[in-house]
Amino acid sequence: MKKTIIIAMILVAFISCNEQKSDTASEKENLMQTSRQWSQVAATGNVDSILSYWMDDAVVLSPGEDPLRGKQQIRQMVEGSFTNPGFHISWEPQSAEISESGDMGYLMENTQMLIPDSAGTSITHNFKAVTIWKKQDDGKWKCVVDVLSPVPAQNN
Amino acid sequence: MKKTIIIAMILVAFISCNEQKSDTASEKENLMQTSRQWSQVAATGNVDSILSYWMDDAVVLSPGEDPLRGKQQIRQMVEGSFTNPGFHISWEPQSAEISESGDMGYLMENTQMLIPDSAGTSITHNFKAVTIWKKQDDGKWKCVVDVLSPVPAQNN
Repeated sequence: MKKTIIIAMILVAFISCNEQKSDTASEKENLMQTSRQWSQVAATGNVDSILSYWMDDAVVLSPGEDPLRGKQQIRQMVEGSFTNPGFHISWEPQSAEISESGDMGYLMENTQMLIPDSAGTSITHNFKAVTIWKKQDDGKWKCVVDVLSPVPAQNN
Repeated sequence: MKKTIIIAMILVAFISCNEQKSDTASEKENLMQTSRQWSQVAATGNVDSILSYWMDDAVVLSPGEDPLRGKQQIRQMVEGSFTNPGFHISWEPQSAEISESGDMGYLMENTQMLIPDSAGTSITHNFKAVTIWKKQDDGKWKCVVDVLSPVPAQNN
């Protein structure tokens, strides 16, 4: 009986330990893949699907704009962007980092926006993006901070 | 002897477990405090001390500038900024988030720069900043990603 309790204690200790560890390499790939999927979803213009990748309390920072805090403000921005039929956004993650516990991570991304000018000519705007992510209880990664930083004019 | 081995196994399991956990509230405060200290160090203009808060492979993103990758590029930027005697930078962290494992975290900060214009008049530039941090083996937090996002012109 005593031996059983001791074995159980060892098992509980090791299991609770392993729950906190994560396979970092596969989690990085998982996070990169989530970002690539999100970019594909962004191409569809489906606002609800696009919004589903952000956490409810996410913050979006764009240069020269007030921070967008929470889903409602972010929804307004996304809906506003897609009212312009020539608007297009896509991105590609460049690198991922994940915490040891596998519950927090961040990506460096290259983002491209096509925005028509007043004459209807599509202008390309390039950004570096940093996105910070939290893993949800269901194992899915969601974005909690999203910062766009414009690249130098000569690279646009 | 057997009993000793079992007790040792339980201890090892629990200790390795607890190493991965962290006191999140105190780590948040620790990270906020590190940021406040860094801001005070920035006021001294001591380049080596300022640089010591970044990791060797840190990335700094400023709007419209090429990304600065690594200490050498960051040093050039910091040294360049402080050649202007009227240059002054300070910031205040607003919120902190820490991974469960306590090895990764990020801050939302408000940053203020004073840069003299061509007539020598100090102009204030306000930014939102996102900084991502990794805890080092010695327990100190160092900044690995640093993004500055300008606030709207009317708030400057």
